[in-house]
Amino acid sequence: MSKIVIGVMGAGNLATPKNRELAYQLGESIAKNNWVLLTGGRNVGVMDAASQGAKAGGGLVVGVLPSNNLAQMSNAVDLPIVTDLGNARNNINVLSSQVIIACGMGLGTASEVALALKNHQPVILLDQTELTCQFFANLAQDRIFYAETVAGAIALVKKILQDLKYRIR
Amino acid sequence: MSKIVIGVMGAGNLATPKNRELAYQLGESIAKNNWVLLTGGRNVGVMDAASQGAKAGGGLVVGVLPSNNLAQMSNAVDLPIVTDLGNARNNINVLSSQVIIACGMGLGTASEVALALKNHQPVILLDQTELTCQFFANLAQDRIFYAETVAGAIALVKKILQDLKYRIR
Amino acid sequence: MSKIVIGVMGAGNLATPKNRELAYQLGESIAKNNWVLLTGGRNVGVMDAASQGAKAGGGLVVGVLPSNNLAQMSNAVDLPIVTDLGNARNNINVLSSQVIIACGMGLGTASEVALALKNHQPVILLDQTELTCQFFANLAQDRIFYAETVAGAIALVKKILQDLKYRIR
Amino acid sequence: MSKIVIGVMGAGNLATPKNRELAYQLGESIAKNNWVLLTGGRNVGVMDAASQGAKAGGGLVVGVLPSNNLAQMSNAVDLPIVTDLGNARNNINVLSSQVIIACGMGLGTASEVALALKNHQPVILLDQTELTCQFFANLAQDRIFYAETVAGAIALVKKILQDLKYRIR
Repeated sequence: MSKIVIGVMGAGNLATPKNRELAYQLGESIAKNNWVLLTGGRNVGVMDAASQGAKAGGGLVVGVLPSNNLAQMSNAVDLPIVTDLGNARNNINVLSSQVIIACGMGLGTASEVALALKNHQPVILLDQTELTCQFFANLAQDRIFYAETVAGAIALVKKILQDLKYRIR
Repeated sequence: MSKIVIGVMGAGNLATPKNRELAYQLGESIAKNNWVLLTGGRNVGVMDAASQGAKAGGGLVVGVLPSNNLAQMSNAVDLPIVTDLGNARNNINVLSSQVIIACGMGLGTASEVALALKNHQPVILLDQTELTCQFFANLAQDRIFYAETVAGAIALVKKILQDLKYRIR
Repeated sequence: MSKIVIGVMGAGNLATPKNRELAYQLGESIAKNNWVLLTGGRNVGVMDAASQGAKAGGGLVVGVLPSNNLAQMSNAVDLPIVTDLGNARNNINVLSSQVIIACGMGLGTASEVALALKNHQPVILLDQTELTCQFFANLAQDRIFYAETVAGAIALVKKILQDLKYRIR
Repeated sequence: MSKIVIGVMGAGNLATPKNRELAYQLGESIAKNNWVLLTGGRNVGVMDAASQGAKAGGGLVVGVLPSNNLAQMSNAVDLPIVTDLGNARNNINVLSSQVIIACGMGLGTASEVALALKNHQPVILLDQTELTCQFFANLAQDRIFYAETVAGAIALVKKILQDLKYRIR
């Protein structure tokens, strides 16, 4: 049986310190649960912070890069997937994760949440504004989950993974 | 010099009759302005209605299909681009259009608006809810335009095309 | 019914003068037969020469670009499809063409011939070496055609298009 | 520093028993060298045999799937990358591997060898015909290596990895 992969998506250059802090904790918790972390692989923002956290937690980090080389990869990535697809790689990020956690929001993240839900993948919106939650809730009634804290998000991941319809597909 | 291509994006199976009606009129107006219409190419919803309108208006219709064949293509498409990329083709839709008009909203459309703005492409939100406008306005301050009517959207397209920064890139 | 699209693939920067000459004639003949020309869209080699020929012949030219902008586009392209997929766009080139003509050979062209045959698309090898013909013939017994001249290639396209199994799919 | 990833490419449904046997041994040797194995991820041919060998050798197996689900995945894959890109995923296979070994030949494999060389990635042709070696040698003079045996291929991988120009990019 293949490993459990949890995707953490969020702003890149525009990430706030709080986004990065939550992402780091998410990465660390994902690693401690023996799940693989998957991110967009770059050395900025939520991608980088989550990867650093997972590394600190002793986990495995997959980075799905938009470019055709490793120049802008987070140094905490263990396994770079080099796509050369630009933002089209966002669809791979969400298809390859059993659960997607959106930590912070940006245009790339918004596309990933939309693509995840379009592909019937479960998405946890972590510490998002009322507006963001309402926008996505209007477009997809099930498969969206909401968490205020990292602990809450991790608890949701466990619940989703236990739910048979997400484990066996 | 290459042709001017206007992308019309919107809900597929879940499109409302009003979405389809506006999309048809958009397609027709785009054709009458001698612009090429680009859509996601399928035979449902806004994609199909816009294509039928452009056909009726005597225009050229490019359909960027997610599949590897023509089985679900709108019969109003003149030029199918067969991608076999699934929803990753959404990034091509927005990169290949000089202006993107979102008519109706769905998860695919939301990903396209986000990807368009991420790629610095101008987007017109046509007849959208306050919530949708606010969600995207928070993520990208310029490059978003709002229209209530088809005539308003077409006027915005003309204005955007005249704007030098979008004509010469 | 959608337009007939003929793809011409071949070397870029490494194209020989003969490759370019044949490509120009191919483009011109494709246009004169009222078929649409599809190429990789760049301003070099076979892509550019075929596009210039089709333009001279009064045809429509679709250029499927690997980049996310128009900077390296052939100025004879009417309809740029901007993919930002790098060489992964080669698969779109061959899926979107009813018949693929390989004029000259290079690594990109070799990948396109292989992908075309893999996708059960008909391929005409124009003016290729014995070695190249033998290599691909060993991998795919049907769907490969051989031509020595542009006139021969165009005659083969007509024959393939008339063949029911390629017209109705 | 990220892990070393070795890609093994080869025929799927059309693989011969010898192709599968060599692929199994390759997978096992790759694992025993503490390299990660990357394949096209499906449960047939060279992809599956290499994955089974790496699993038996205690290694980590990345499978880059063409589909949008796990239905046809080799059960020896640890980390599925779900692309929904069809054959366009071949470009990811070769970009994400430090060295590519072609074991057996088919249309997909031919496209991968061509795309790898196009992207300046080193390729080892294992147990290939004279014709195949000659075809690719004509298109790319450096970056191609030839091996007759699995031990020979593994020795070449070590040599390539030691070569500075491939380690630091």
